[in-house]
Order: sequence, then C-alpha cells, then structure tokens
Amino acid sequence: MCEQALKYLTENRDNTLKKLNDFLSIPSVSTDSVHKKDINEAANFLETYLNDIGFDKVEQQDTGGHPLVYAEYNQAGPDAPTVLFYGHYDVQPVDPIDQWKSDPFKPEVRDGRLYARGSSDDKGQVFMHLAVFEAYMKTEGKLPLNVKVCIEGEEEIGSENLYRILHDKQDQFNADFAVISDSGMIAENQPTILYGLKGFTGIEINVTGPDHDMHSGMYGGAIRNPIMALNHILTSMKNEDEVVTVDGFYDGVEPLTDKERELIKQVQGEDYRSTAGVNETASEKGYTAKEHTMARPTFEINGMYGGYQGEGTKTIIPSSATAKITCRLVPGQDPDQVQQLLEKHVYDVAPSGVEVEVVKEKLSAKAYKVEPNNPLIEKAAKSYTKAFGKETVFVRMGGSIPVVEWIEDIYKMPIVLLGFGTPDDRLHSPNESFPLDSFDKGMETLVHYWSEINTK
Amino acid sequence: MCEQALKYLTENRDNTLKKLNDFLSIPSVSTDSVHKKDINEAANFLETYLNDIGFDKVEQQDTGGHPLVYAEYNQAGPDAPTVLFYGHYDVQPVDPIDQWKSDPFKPEVRDGRLYARGSSDDKGQVFMHLAVFEAYMKTEGKLPLNVKVCIEGEEEIGSENLYRILHDKQDQFNADFAVISDSGMIAENQPTILYGLKGFTGIEINVTGPDHDMHSGMYGGAIRNPIMALNHILTSMKNEDEVVTVDGFYDGVEPLTDKERELIKQVQGEDYRSTAGVNETASEKGYTAKEHTMARPTFEINGMYGGYQGEGTKTIIPSSATAKITCRLVPGQDPDQVQQLLEKHVYDVAPSGVEVEVVKEKLSAKAYKVEPNNPLIEKAAKSYTKAFGKETVFVRMGGSIPVVEWIEDIYKMPIVLLGFGTPDDRLHSPNESFPLDSFDKGMETLVHYWSEINTK
Repeated sequence: MCEQALKYLTENRDNTLKKLNDFLSIPSVSTDSVHKKDINEAANFLETYLNDIGFDKVEQQDTGGHPLVYAEYNQAGPDAPTVLFYGHYDVQPVDPIDQWKSDPFKPEVRDGRLYARGSSDDKGQVFMHLAVFEAYMKTEGKLPLNVKVCIEGEEEIGSENLYRILHDKQDQFNADFAVISDSGMIAENQPTILYGLKGFTGIEINVTGPDHDMHSGMYGGAIRNPIMALNHILTSMKNEDEVVTVDGFYDGVEPLTDKERELIKQVQGEDYRSTAGVNETASEKGYTAKEHTMARPTFEINGMYGGYQGEGTKTIIPSSATAKITCRLVPGQDPDQVQQLLEKHVYDVAPSGVEVEVVKEKLSAKAYKVEPNNPLIEKAAKSYTKAFGKETVFVRMGGSIPVVEWIEDIYKMPIVLLGFGTPDDRLHSPNESFPLDSFDKGMETLVHYWSEINTK
Repeated sequence: MCEQALKYLTENRDNTLKKLNDFLSIPSVSTDSVHKKDINEAANFLETYLNDIGFDKVEQQDTGGHPLVYAEYNQAGPDAPTVLFYGHYDVQPVDPIDQWKSDPFKPEVRDGRLYARGSSDDKGQVFMHLAVFEAYMKTEGKLPLNVKVCIEGEEEIGSENLYRILHDKQDQFNADFAVISDSGMIAENQPTILYGLKGFTGIEINVTGPDHDMHSGMYGGAIRNPIMALNHILTSMKNEDEVVTVDGFYDGVEPLTDKERELIKQVQGEDYRSTAGVNETASEKGYTAKEHTMARPTFEINGMYGGYQGEGTKTIIPSSATAKITCRLVPGQDPDQVQQLLEKHVYDVAPSGVEVEVVKEKLSAKAYKVEPNNPLIEKAAKSYTKAFGKETVFVRMGGSIPVVEWIEDIYKMPIVLLGFGTPDDRLHSPNESFPLDSFDKGMETLVHYWSEINTK
C-alpha cells in the first residue's frame, strides 16, 4: 500500500522542500529569550501543518516554558498499534555567527546538502515524519497506524518541563511504542539503529576573586588570580590521560566486555580526525576513541571565560572566571550522584583567597540500552535496508536524549531510535547541514516502516 | 618666588578643573582602533594647551602609531637645568562598562573624588604638570627651569614606538634629569617616591583543536578539548603556592635582603584585602604579599576564553581556547630571556591532538632601581613634605613603566618618579577616580619642586 505514498513524495518533492525551508527559516533558538517570538512562530507552523495533514486534537500545550505541540490520529482503529512520535522544533544558538558561510536561517543547498540551523537537529528530521504522514493521507486517505505527536520546544535547553508533562498526562501520551528521529547514522548512507545512549549531567563553576579587576602590577603577588584558581580546580578533575580524577566518578560503570569491544571495532564509519579536522584522536587511557565515545563516560568543558578578551593587552587580575562542564554517562552511573561528586570535588579542592560557587545543571538523564532483537526494531532495520539498500548496523552512541530515558522510565514502552543524520552535519556548530539524499531515503524508510509495522 | 603661582592655582581652581574635565571627556583609548579619532583629539588638546601656556616648538610627532606630543621651553637660560617631563594621554579600555556608576568619559565628582577613565592614569597627573607650568607663566612670566615635554599616546599598548624615537632623537630629548608622574602613593596623603619598578614581559597562548565546535556527545572521548589542554599548560606554569614552575624563571633574581624586607615591612598603607575585596591574600610561598608585590616577580593570567559563554548550556567541544599572560620582573631578570623560557615551556608541555601557538607580547622592560640619596630625589621628597605635611617614604613597587628603563638605558639621566595616585584609584578598572585633594596638593608639590630644583 505504500507505492502511492512514495510516488506522492517524489512528485511533490519541490513543495515539500519549499515548506521545509519555511520551517527552517524560523530562528527558534530556545536558550535565548530574545527568540521567544520565533519559538511561538515555529510552534504555530507545526500546529497549522498538522491540521492541514488531517490530525485530530491538534493543540499547543502550555509547559510553563516554550509550548509543546501535541496531536492525535486515531482513525486507524483500535486494532492498529499506536505510535508516540517525539521530536523537537527548537534549535541551538548560532554563534560564532561569522563562521557561517550562509545565513543559518536562510536555508541554502550546496553540493547536495541543505545548510541551515536545525536542518539535521531536529527540525529537518521532524519535518520528514510530517511529510510522510501527509503523503499517506493525500494518497490513502488514512495512516497505517494510530499516531500521537509530541514535538517540544525545549530540547536544547534540557527539556525542563517535559518530564513533568509526560509523567502527569500518561493517559494522553501512552502508546504501544515510541519513535524518535533525533540522532544520526554512523556514516552517510549507512542505516544505523541506536541501541544505547549516554546519560547526562553537568555543573557550572564560578570563581570570584577581587570585587573589581585589579592592576596586575599593584596587586600581582598579593591576591589569588580567579582564572588560575579555576585552572587548578579543572586540571584536578581530569588528567592528561583523559581519565576523570573525581572520586567515585566511575563507580558502577559496567566494564566493557570483549564481545562489545569487538562489536564497536566492527562499526565502520567516521574517522573522528577527518570530520573534526585534528591530526590525532585523544581518548581515555586503555580505550580507543570509538570505545570512549560510544561506551565510556566523558567529562567536557563546553566553555570557559574570565578577564580581558579584547584586542591587545590589559594588565589586570580579573575579578572572576567561569567554566561550563557537562558529562555524558553510561549504564550504571546515576546522574544526580555524579553531579554531587563533581560538586563535592570542586568545593574540596577550591583554593583559598577566592570564592567558589557550583551551579548544578538542571538537565540530567540516565543512560539507555535496549535489546536489538525486539521485533519493532527488526522491522525498522528492514525498512532502512529497503530504502538505503544496505544492511542496518546497531550501535551505542555518545549522545544523550533525556526523553528516551523518561519515556522508558514512565511508560516502559519500546523506543525505536530512527536517526537519519550524518557525521558531517555539524550539529550545534556553524554550517549545520543535512544531505538531501538522506532526506529522501529517510522519508522512504518511514513509508516502509509504517506499512510494515501493522503487519504481523 | 612660588607664592604667586600657588595663589594663581587657588584662585583659578574652577577653570583648571573645568579644563581637566574637557581633557578627561575625550575617550582616548589606545588599544581599540575605533578610538583613533579621539586619540588625535586628545593630542590636539595638549598641543593647544602647551601653545597657550607659552611653550616653544610645540609639535605632534608622527610615531607610525598614535602621535607623540612634544614641546620645549628654553627661556630659563643655559645655566638653568633642563627637565624631560614624560606622561601619556592614552587610557585603558573601559569594559566592563556596565560596572561604571557614571559615564567613564563624563567626569563626575563624588565624595571628593573625580570619577573618569584616566583621571589618575595618566591624564589627570599629566594635566597637573601643565597647570603648574601655566601658573608660573601667568604669574612670573617664566618657568624656573628649562623643560622638554614628551607626552605619548601609546603607553597602555606598550609604547610600541617610543623606544625607537627616544633612541633616534637623542639631541632633541636629552636633558639633565627626567620627571614622571605615572605612579601612586602607598596611601592617600602619604608622599611616596618610587626607587624601584618592575620589568615586564608577556605571551598569549592560542590552543586550536577541532576546526569547528563539535557535539560533545558524538566527539567527547575522541578528541582533545582545547580548554582542558590549555588548563593543563597553565597549571604547569604556576603552582598553588603561587610559585612559578617555569624552568629558569627565577634565574638571576637578586635575593631579598633582611634590610630590604625590614624596609618593606615598615611601609604602611593599603591592606590589599580591603582594597581588592578579598578575605585573604595569596602570595609566593616564603614571602609576604607586600614582599611579593614590591620585590618578587609575578605571573598573571589577564584573560582566558574559549567555547560557549552565553545563557544556558551548549554541549560542545570548542574549537579553540586562548590565554593572555603577563609577568612583572625584578632586577636580575632579562625580559626577552624570560619570554623565551615561557614560550619554550609551553611548547614543551603542549599535549598531543591540539595545535599550540605562542604569540610574544611586544612590550618588554627591564626592572629599575635608583639610589634614594640622589639630591634631585631628596629635593622632590622635601617638596612633597611641604605640600602634604608628612615625611616622604621610599618604596619599590610592582608596576612597570618601560619608559623609565628606556630613558635610563639611552640617556643615563636620573629619573624622579613623582606619583600622586592613591590605592583606591581603581586604575585599569571600572570607576577609576582621583582625589581632588591629591590633585591640589600634588600641584603644590610641583610648584615647590620647580622652585627648589634651581637652587644649589
């Protein structure tokens, strides 16, 4: 029954892309309050589109933060399974803006890639699902299964309100299984299903010294330098072997089995060096880069600043310094406990003569792992292969999708992670893009999957 | 002969202050090219004022950078001594601007202090000299000695062109002695003469990792984090005992004698804690804060930055990190050699997986020391005491005035450092100010000094 839908997608490709461009042109940056208007515009866009497709009960739910777009389709009948589709319409900030080759919010196609903030993470992938639903409705007049749509606007700022909503509205969001497309393939055109994701936690460290910037000649040697103090705190947390030296950080971490190491080794795909543009990888002593990224916890400083940053020199002892730190966790680690360990460590090593404050990152998530032989996942793998003409591989990845842990935690339903991104998409950084080829084959995959899913 | 000049200063105080405000209202920030116009305006202001006072040969000399204002007064005759007066009309940047209680370039008097960028460093002190010259000319019709004026516009960016000019135009700038007012008193109303200044050198460290910001989930554990790499480099340069751990850094440093330690201990004046607003001082192990600041070399990070600095979180591995470092040196240390030691150390410890580049700070200066019993200095001390009604103290200080070393190096002439700033002036930081009381007594000091200087 899916040939018609596929035909529709082919014939309407231009319209679909035009509509996607409209969606990507909305600067829905969730972390920056100046974009509140744009966030609402993106939510309105989705509400309109879902209504046009023919969903019932389309609504914007008030979360206390950015609105959550909800919709239902029940016309497949009580015997058909119900899928909960999750995605997010908010995007990361665009800075450093001067490194973009084209306006992040004026989508532009270059060498078969669509360049725009959100093209891959996650507006592009959300849009693929909606376009496929449209194709089915326009050709078959119905969808092969019942659908609940949950598209939030706060993923890039930690989905602050989502857990509460999923927890409080279980009748509304409950389904037979969930599908999420907010991840990537290990290589372009290599169908990939994630069976493991990392957990997440973080802290911000603020070090305050003198109450104003001091002349380095008159005060150098008399007071503690906040930047240097912060340097000493940070180097005490991770050594040059890339081993985290915070007491208890690795407690409970499942050791990597030889079988899993073998599996990871077999994973083809990106060479981190070429995609990152570095001459050498760097990973935890005793583990390969792939092993560390996919299956070992990480500790990264995402940003640090203090003192003078302008042209030329300014001979001061700055009054403060700040570092933003996030960790990716693996099964066996409890995010809250790890966060407390980080906080305790910082206060324990804080030098005298400065004030040190730890601000706890609100977002936290446990790591996630599912069994690859689940039939829902096997059908997804088959659909992938049909569309891409290649065997599907199963991998664990270093990314964190808190909602995955929450859905499992609250609903215990199987979750299928159908990612279509590629290693070259430059998520979260300048010149984010998405291959149009993945866009087409991804939609084809979804068409196959929905028609497969209802068959016994 | 100086009573008339003193009377003139008292009666014309309002005009003098009004004119000073005009001077301070010009935002002559030398490090930022957008202020080029203002730099020229400040130079024009001085040229006009010197002409009005009655100087000969007033000119703006092309330095290749910001103009140097030069003027001569020779009418005191061949038997009178000639002084070379040095000062600078450029100022430090004003950021963080939001911490200023009043506009840095709209001078405002609060509690007897004049608030404005440059009020103390160094426009206010330069202006005092010109006002005193004016007072003498207006009352006596002449100055008690011959004067050569040298006021540059590049002090806050390392006096890049001054050394070359002083070196190439020795006939023009040569004099019997030099007077500089670009320093401070150890306490308000405590006459202070500096007999020792620190040298200066610095480097900037740029660490480059991936060629764009990378997703911390997909690349965490696979590549080196430039901020963490820079942290490890910096903590290897100075330990938590405030001891610099760069090989050879202390080579040649003259040990502090018991006599000098006693002298430093006797220096009254600022408690670093109260003026800096910290609960505890921090200085090199084995030395007091005063000893370290006045007589031991220092190593300070003036600024550091990399990665995300905005609201909220951004889960990236940043592509680069930078640190700006300057050192204050003591007699026995060679700035260029210390700079090479710093550079070598950084390259020696640079971790793999990132590119590390050291940019050498152009400004460098040797430390300076003079014998306090020089008659020119004794006369200065006497004039100070007349004006402030207090014995003058002699101290070494942590600041660096490269021109001092250059004048000594090229001309071998005695240099008198007549500073009128106070510890609360907040040089180089928000809310810089200068006490009007120091302004009045400082000018009185200069009037006495010029009349004394010509007497045997």
